[in-house]
Amino acid sequence: MTGGATNWNGLVERGGAVRFIDINLRGVGQVFFQNNPLTGLLFLAAIVWSAYAAKTPAIAVGAVVGLVVSTTTAILLRSDATSLRQGLFGFNGVLVGVAVPTFLAPVPAMWPLLVLGAAVSTVVMLAVSKVMKSWGTPALTFPFVLTTWFLILSAHSFGRLPIDGIAPPHLPQAVEAFPIVDFNAALLGVSWIKGVAQVFLIDNWVAGLLILLGLVVSSVWAAVFALLGSAAGLAGAVLLGAAVSDIDAGLYGFSPALTAIALGCVFYQLSWRVALFALLGAVFTVIVQGALDAALAPVGIPTFTAPFVFVTWLFLLPRADFEPHRHEPIERALLKDK
Amino acid sequence: MTGGATNWNGLVERGGAVRFIDINLRGVGQVFFQNNPLTGLLFLAAIVWSAYAAKTPAIAVGAVVGLVVSTTTAILLRSDATSLRQGLFGFNGVLVGVAVPTFLAPVPAMWPLLVLGAAVSTVVMLAVSKVMKSWGTPALTFPFVLTTWFLILSAHSFGRLPIDGIAPPHLPQAVEAFPIVDFNAALLGVSWIKGVAQVFLIDNWVAGLLILLGLVVSSVWAAVFALLGSAAGLAGAVLLGAAVSDIDAGLYGFSPALTAIALGCVFYQLSWRVALFALLGAVFTVIVQGALDAALAPVGIPTFTAPFVFVTWLFLLPRADFEPHRHEPIERALLKDK
Amino acid sequence: MTGGATNWNGLVERGGAVRFIDINLRGVGQVFFQNNPLTGLLFLAAIVWSAYAAKTPAIAVGAVVGLVVSTTTAILLRSDATSLRQGLFGFNGVLVGVAVPTFLAPVPAMWPLLVLGAAVSTVVMLAVSKVMKSWGTPALTFPFVLTTWFLILSAHSFGRLPIDGIAPPHLPQAVEAFPIVDFNAALLGVSWIKGVAQVFLIDNWVAGLLILLGLVVSSVWAAVFALLGSAAGLAGAVLLGAAVSDIDAGLYGFSPALTAIALGCVFYQLSWRVALFALLGAVFTVIVQGALDAALAPVGIPTFTAPFVFVTWLFLLPRADFEPHRHEPIERALLKDK
Repeated sequence: MTGGATNWNGLVERGGAVRFIDINLRGVGQVFFQNNPLTGLLFLAAIVWSAYAAKTPAIAVGAVVGLVVSTTTAILLRSDATSLRQGLFGFNGVLVGVAVPTFLAPVPAMWPLLVLGAAVSTVVMLAVSKVMKSWGTPALTFPFVLTTWFLILSAHSFGRLPIDGIAPPHLPQAVEAFPIVDFNAALLGVSWIKGVAQVFLIDNWVAGLLILLGLVVSSVWAAVFALLGSAAGLAGAVLLGAAVSDIDAGLYGFSPALTAIALGCVFYQLSWRVALFALLGAVFTVIVQGALDAALAPVGIPTFTAPFVFVTWLFLLPRADFEPHRHEPIERALLKDK
Repeated sequence: MTGGATNWNGLVERGGAVRFIDINLRGVGQVFFQNNPLTGLLFLAAIVWSAYAAKTPAIAVGAVVGLVVSTTTAILLRSDATSLRQGLFGFNGVLVGVAVPTFLAPVPAMWPLLVLGAAVSTVVMLAVSKVMKSWGTPALTFPFVLTTWFLILSAHSFGRLPIDGIAPPHLPQAVEAFPIVDFNAALLGVSWIKGVAQVFLIDNWVAGLLILLGLVVSSVWAAVFALLGSAAGLAGAVLLGAAVSDIDAGLYGFSPALTAIALGCVFYQLSWRVALFALLGAVFTVIVQGALDAALAPVGIPTFTAPFVFVTWLFLLPRADFEPHRHEPIERALLKDK
Repeated sequence: MTGGATNWNGLVERGGAVRFIDINLRGVGQVFFQNNPLTGLLFLAAIVWSAYAAKTPAIAVGAVVGLVVSTTTAILLRSDATSLRQGLFGFNGVLVGVAVPTFLAPVPAMWPLLVLGAAVSTVVMLAVSKVMKSWGTPALTFPFVLTTWFLILSAHSFGRLPIDGIAPPHLPQAVEAFPIVDFNAALLGVSWIKGVAQVFLIDNWVAGLLILLGLVVSSVWAAVFALLGSAAGLAGAVLLGAAVSDIDAGLYGFSPALTAIALGCVFYQLSWRVALFALLGAVFTVIVQGALDAALAPVGIPTFTAPFVFVTWLFLLPRADFEPHRHEPIERALLKDK
């Protein structure tokens, strides 16, 4: 593995197509804060596998197109070279590329919209980063969320962009709680893994395992916190009585999983104190997931990763003075003991 | 009184339980910007009285739990000691503790939600303070508003958190204006006092008098501006033809009352010019109250003190350069003449 | 013309009523970023003409009242003299003054609301400017948008403020696409010009020509980008299948027109690169227009110029470090070559 990594890094240094591929793969990895091309490759494999299994090839193609367009836009806009090399201009684009074909019917007009959205996601990344940098806080996936909210919302106003796979706009309605004892342990286990996969809007547990493998090759702690976060989301949703179809699909797991990784082992230095703080954040993310599901129902758009973004911002802002921590490779953070 | 205050301060200096109680009482007082434990005690008395009168003990218990949890969280997070001692980490928590049992049915799941919300309100306080400090502007009660919006919104998605006491989500509907001449002067007087009490979500005029007493022992001007603001809210709502049940309950008074105090005698130095500016702010708060009532109707949550927060931010931001003013005891501000 | 300008500037220097008129006329011109009193006069003529043609005199009166009130408020608040002289405290007020009588019935209560809104728009201008200045970005017309959203939203809660000319609150509904081949070229040309006029909420092509003339006397490039932006909006809306009545009225043109001017020749230095960037922004503004139309439908308010504001902020923030550019007369920006 180390030998392979050395060879790859040597090829990347020569520039050209290999470097461009490296940047793009790191971009996919950064969806989970991993600056690692192999992680990105495994994440892409998860996307392709689930698109194959669900017979939705447009999603796999969209992911690659969104990724390449957003990265290329960053190059054309002469963005910061270090950030570019770390893939920080790819992770929003790949998510735009997955989300658009997931929620819009595969009509011709969808493709230019996807390309436009991926290009704009880079502009939004630069804008949000500039604002949040004032308080030493990263943009997270908010550029993806904001851009894709605009794209999907606009489809409600445009006759040639039919929406597919979102409940029509409706007022929030009372949810009936599913008896806790009637949950099936095996199915809950599947939902647990799906929670990780839903970060890429994937409802497929095999893809979830591929994503966890991608995390493990980069950072075991990231995989651990992903599973802890998804479990916290699952437990919270079951106990509070969320809609059982959402629980089954892992829709209460993906944002807490990201919150747990971000707070637990990326932006703070791992410790018991930090782990408890991350758990508090992950649990509150379940509340914000339920809240945004209700708030966005009347306008007919999904929350995407907004619950993760809002909670992580709120939990990062307070400590930014005391413990500044760059978006560095996670291993370095783990070495420092508190 | 002065002797009593001296004795109390002496006990507080020794630390321990008395200091903890002092911090918590100041936290209640800070809902109206008063760094004064006696004020806080009278405010708590108002909450307890109205909970007793309305046979809603959960609200009184919730207030104390929310207060203690948010203060304790601030201690555990090693927050700024001066801010802590002034009660700045208690006022959002006590409001969360009042709001949750007011709008959710008293089911078992409500209590952990209340504790979670109170703890998170301290994190949000730190986060919002950090952002707003960039422009020399305080967080006000926005941490309470944001946290509790998330909590109550989420109840729409969770079957084991039944909502109680909020109109179900609905599209804004035309309101029929009540003839001005048909208003009863005595009832308007009651609504005037209730307007002050509704800061704590209390629909009880005796509690309103207790709150005014709590203001008087700390700052007569704060009481004066509270009454002026509530009157401006009442007058605006009557003249513009707001829903008569909202007018009666004092729901158009509480945000203008807070705006008037904040602008008139806390964050600006009292003068005729400032008083006029505060009046403009209080009147515009009535508009924003009506606006947010309509905007939030489709998602089924109350505005809480958001109209006060938004208007006060807009009216504080412009002058922050010229007249910086710390969140100091109000008496010192009054001493300085312009 | 130059002689007339010299004479006028001489009169303005003497102060008094002429200077006050000059400031107000520049305020109207600044709606399109033009610090030019003749431009402002031609814009006012467009407003008066369309009010005359549509028999809505309240709109013309409202425009002048809103303008004068917001400018006077800025003087009373002792705002920055240079900004004041450039008309930067008038453009939000004139838009408030046009919008309120456009969307509220001409009842007595409308007039104090308009005056209150115009005065507050100056406070909001100071507040938003202070915040956005942190990132070298202007407030744009957001003070108008925010203030007027509050005013119109509040009318849903007040019986004595009947709304007129907005669809009642409704959930977003699917739009039927109009066949592209069935569009009439002449009518599209009219919509193209109306797109420019709709910045002032005017559905009248003669007024659109007057506005274009006002731009030409100050900056030919501003007129060119206005037409390019409106064309981009029209083309995008036709291709994506927007509601044909909105297309006809120019409602997809006005925000892209402003985005194109702002990005193309006001805040960046004109070049081919910048022109392409401005075009990307203008096209994305069409998406955001469709998005906000859907998002605001449930609360029954128009988008106003929010799509322009949000997109222009997102497209200005990234480059603010590299190419700082004051809100200067546009001619100077054009002289510098890149």
